[in-house]
Amino acid sequence: MADGASGPIVDTTASPCARLRPLPVAAVRPTDEFWAPRIARNRVATIPSQLAQCKATGRVDNFRRASGKIGGEFQGIYFNDSDVYKWAEAAAWSLATYPDPALEAELDGVVAEIAAAQQPDGYLNTYFMFERAKERFRNLKDMHEIYCAGHLFQAAVAHFRATGKRTLLDVACRLADHLVTQFGPDGRIGACGHEEAEMGLVELFRTTRDARYLDLARRMIEARGQTPAVLGRSPYHQDHAPFAKQRKMTGHAVRHLYLCCGAADVVAETGDAAYLAALDALWHNFTLRQMYITGGAGSRHEGEAFGDDYELPNERAYTETCAAIGSVMWNWRMLLLTGLPQYADVLELALYNAVLPGLSLDGTRYFYENPLADRGGHRRQEWFGCACCPPNVARLLASLPGYLYSIADEGVYVHLYASSEAALTLPTGDTVRLREETDYPWNGEITIHIDEAPDREITLFLRVPFWADEAESQLFLNGDDATNFLTGEPGAYRAVRRLWRAGDIVRLVLPMPVECIESHPHVTSNRGRVALQRGPLVYCIEQADNPNGDAWDLALTDDSTFSTERLEIAGHSVIALRTDGLVRNANAWADALYAPYAPENSEDFSPATLTAIPYYAWANREAGPMQVWIPVVSDQ
Amino acid sequence: MADGASGPIVDTTASPCARLRPLPVAAVRPTDEFWAPRIARNRVATIPSQLAQCKATGRVDNFRRASGKIGGEFQGIYFNDSDVYKWAEAAAWSLATYPDPALEAELDGVVAEIAAAQQPDGYLNTYFMFERAKERFRNLKDMHEIYCAGHLFQAAVAHFRATGKRTLLDVACRLADHLVTQFGPDGRIGACGHEEAEMGLVELFRTTRDARYLDLARRMIEARGQTPAVLGRSPYHQDHAPFAKQRKMTGHAVRHLYLCCGAADVVAETGDAAYLAALDALWHNFTLRQMYITGGAGSRHEGEAFGDDYELPNERAYTETCAAIGSVMWNWRMLLLTGLPQYADVLELALYNAVLPGLSLDGTRYFYENPLADRGGHRRQEWFGCACCPPNVARLLASLPGYLYSIADEGVYVHLYASSEAALTLPTGDTVRLREETDYPWNGEITIHIDEAPDREITLFLRVPFWADEAESQLFLNGDDATNFLTGEPGAYRAVRRLWRAGDIVRLVLPMPVECIESHPHVTSNRGRVALQRGPLVYCIEQADNPNGDAWDLALTDDSTFSTERLEIAGHSVIALRTDGLVRNANAWADALYAPYAPENSEDFSPATLTAIPYYAWANREAGPMQVWIPVVSDQ
Repeated sequence: MADGASGPIVDTTASPCARLRPLPVAAVRPTDEFWAPRIARNRVATIPSQLAQCKATGRVDNFRRASGKIGGEFQGIYFNDSDVYKWAEAAAWSLATYPDPALEAELDGVVAEIAAAQQPDGYLNTYFMFERAKERFRNLKDMHEIYCAGHLFQAAVAHFRATGKRTLLDVACRLADHLVTQFGPDGRIGACGHEEAEMGLVELFRTTRDARYLDLARRMIEARGQTPAVLGRSPYHQDHAPFAKQRKMTGHAVRHLYLCCGAADVVAETGDAAYLAALDALWHNFTLRQMYITGGAGSRHEGEAFGDDYELPNERAYTETCAAIGSVMWNWRMLLLTGLPQYADVLELALYNAVLPGLSLDGTRYFYENPLADRGGHRRQEWFGCACCPPNVARLLASLPGYLYSIADEGVYVHLYASSEAALTLPTGDTVRLREETDYPWNGEITIHIDEAPDREITLFLRVPFWADEAESQLFLNGDDATNFLTGEPGAYRAVRRLWRAGDIVRLVLPMPVECIESHPHVTSNRGRVALQRGPLVYCIEQADNPNGDAWDLALTDDSTFSTERLEIAGHSVIALRTDGLVRNANAWADALYAPYAPENSEDFSPATLTAIPYYAWANREAGPMQVWIPVVSDQ
Repeated sequence: MADGASGPIVDTTASPCARLRPLPVAAVRPTDEFWAPRIARNRVATIPSQLAQCKATGRVDNFRRASGKIGGEFQGIYFNDSDVYKWAEAAAWSLATYPDPALEAELDGVVAEIAAAQQPDGYLNTYFMFERAKERFRNLKDMHEIYCAGHLFQAAVAHFRATGKRTLLDVACRLADHLVTQFGPDGRIGACGHEEAEMGLVELFRTTRDARYLDLARRMIEARGQTPAVLGRSPYHQDHAPFAKQRKMTGHAVRHLYLCCGAADVVAETGDAAYLAALDALWHNFTLRQMYITGGAGSRHEGEAFGDDYELPNERAYTETCAAIGSVMWNWRMLLLTGLPQYADVLELALYNAVLPGLSLDGTRYFYENPLADRGGHRRQEWFGCACCPPNVARLLASLPGYLYSIADEGVYVHLYASSEAALTLPTGDTVRLREETDYPWNGEITIHIDEAPDREITLFLRVPFWADEAESQLFLNGDDATNFLTGEPGAYRAVRRLWRAGDIVRLVLPMPVECIESHPHVTSNRGRVALQRGPLVYCIEQADNPNGDAWDLALTDDSTFSTERLEIAGHSVIALRTDGLVRNANAWADALYAPYAPENSEDFSPATLTAIPYYAWANREAGPMQVWIPVVSDQ
């Protein structure tokens, strides 16, 4: 039994095949102006309002009905239990970093309702009660029954790690034991049409060391792609091929990403080489063929699915917020497994540009879909009938401090940059205390103060993000140029090894120019367009900042140069980009849809200033056209 | 009662508010090398194979089950009756132009099965029988119950007009009478979630002169957008607003197009000004905001639906074959109503470029969706579970001769050009016989021989298609230049009025240069691309003709010039286009999805010959990439 106080999100502390060890969420305290206020807002606005929604929509009452406390019908959608579990996970991680007796009491109350609804045999799903009890585990493909269990497992682990309480963990273990009787060595082959339980089971194994849970996770992954088919043989459910043979992200995006999370967790425990090969191929397929520039995943509305390679439409991008979170979760697991910064790069990209847009700046409204271009019709909602995304965002934000650093025998890894304080205990037992100061993501200058260090050499592993030009970056050690440390093996962390002393100061300077990015020519919707990126942030042009014309009629030129300036958006300060660009003359197309081709030339346009804002901040003011991929008019 | 021998598809002969009168399908005999072989193939290959499919899939047996001849369960989808009706309509129109005793016997057999399944009260739908009889008219929104009836009405009218037999017409009238009892003046407000019955009822009125059918059609159109809602208030079902107030094509594409057909039919009979205003606005919304360059309709997979204005993706174009047929049907009705050539232009565009691609060149396989770009994965199928498209293509091809000409008191309208013979009786009773000779759509030279003409002045109305440059077109009358006739009112047919003599020869010469077409800048997927059009045909580049590189890596230049040459595709001769273009160097992108922008320049490309084929002919050879919208590399 692991110590409840250890508290990481994904606990690879004892995983034989994982390269890195995580930190407890509570070991890191963000002090910055970007994440710290968001985490606070998550605590004071988002988490309470989500519990109110769960109560108002019958999600909590479904548990009370199942325990016989109230009568009536099951309310809502059959997978609504999972929203309560995700909320509980969010509340637990929030308690891990910010004790709050009122929230803890609320959470204890919800946990008690969950526990009371559990059946004597350990079964727990409030939809399959009473008249529907006979339908239990009859339709694994469609009914999200084991998916809900998986979210319970994650919530229970978080609750235990954050508070040391076993109340929810015991419920989870009883349900997991019940699943073992059904789908374990003495049961039948089965898995959920919506993956999730796999990673939940591995984490439950890591918490309890009960090897049956790890075995069940592996069995559920193995259940896919078997003959006869367990889940209908459909790519939608990732049942078209055994996981070990999968090479292309396909079908429902959240499901495939969650499957990859579970498989990565299994690899960390077992070292399964076939799974690792599949994960590697799938990750490359995702990042080189199917990932939006924002890190968003899943381009198709139909089936909430991955599309063909290079199929990345902008207005009709689906890019579900949950899929971006799934990518963060998968990349975090790959990072712990391998120690390779490429995974932190994709994690950071998705976090800033595909998860954050899913939440309004005031923390109370949500996007389910995240198009990269819009005419002004797409607006965040307070809640959804299918409300998977809101509590998914909440649990990620609540646990965010746990993603900043990790450790290994040889030292400390810095993955995400943010002003923060961290108190670390290395696997060797050595203690390290760090203070980081930076205005990241607005500025690439990062100062790390060593406040305590062991009396032996250790390594500080620094990530030079994919967007940073290594040749232009600089490193200073107590004021002295140490840039030589930045030249290292490609695709590896930059290692600064020495006998550290309290008071040592490391300063990393990553220039943050505005980059114009183009995409592979087979991404047909981006032809003749660029996206603007500065540091880890992808930008967009939104109508509210651009009075010179329809935001879809604005264009850049080949020689556009950019300035930056602070801008307030709904009370939040961002760095905006400004440039002298063009606006298409309003009369250029009049009332035609098709016309004989004439090469685009400057007479079709007039000069216009363009203002771009971080994509995550769009749709927080008045509605209007927005686009990430901006036309470029080449000089003739 | 109209005369069975009159036989037009849409009979506006007695419609008080229609500008034009149609010809009987049998009055025109195509003799050309484009349509005549297709109509013949439809007769000898398509129609027989579709009956075999209808029989093999239980579609015919469903009628036998309903009449008690066999037992068992209803087979297939609840709207499968409509496929049998559409097949019967196709067979009837085929018999109208080509007597075939074997086919007539087959059709009589199917008609007998249909008739035997009709209930004593006139009800007829083989899904809602026996245990499901209680569900009749309970779920109008979803169950296509009245939609199936509408296809029966159209089949019955065709059968009567083609053969003079009342066997199916009597069945249709009994069912229509039953609908009148349910939804007529003494019944409730109701309409089908899938429009179709409206136009079927008007045609049944035109055939029987029973005004209750016209009234019921109007009532069903009025049922939409009412409060309380009859069809769920959803744009998908066009129930979001009363038809008279609709201004934007929305929801399920086939449904909205069929609704417009029914409304146009009602206007032809009643002159309803509010409907006409809606039709005009909807048509302009369609053609100026939502129509593919092929004439295809309905861009979204989800909901098989129209999208937002300018939302016209290429790889994921849905553009259902049935929607293109719906557009042909709607535009034909608008043309008869108004006499304006703009409707014939859109009809012709859709016919060649959005309907025809739905059928393989050998007439045995079908596309349901018609993407404008593909990687080679989209291939025609022999049949579908939801088999609406195949018999829809068959009935259109079988009735095609009826679309070439129409008449009015003052003379003859030539809408679609094709070598053909036509024997016409004007509303005045005067007889005209024409012979047309042309290699259209490959060549724009059209010769019309007047073989018989009345002894009074009449007008020959010629369409100068939207793609033709009027200033470059020429007209000759018995060898003399009569080009002055081509300058007329914009948007009107060109009128040549005179006392015609047998032996008169009219020669219209429409130059057919290759045109490079671009699209409105808000069609984001087409930026920096052009489509090639020659005459009425839209072209594409397909891998099979382009060995120089991936068809998606080919590009044109600003100064590309084209030559034409004959090419055989699966035994069919087409005119292909050739040009000196470019191919993107294979190593230009290596293995990246995003990269810093560099203006496109000729060093990224190598010279390459491009070969383009008519879009309708794609996917008849080996699978490979295809695209309609071809990148243009501007000269730097």
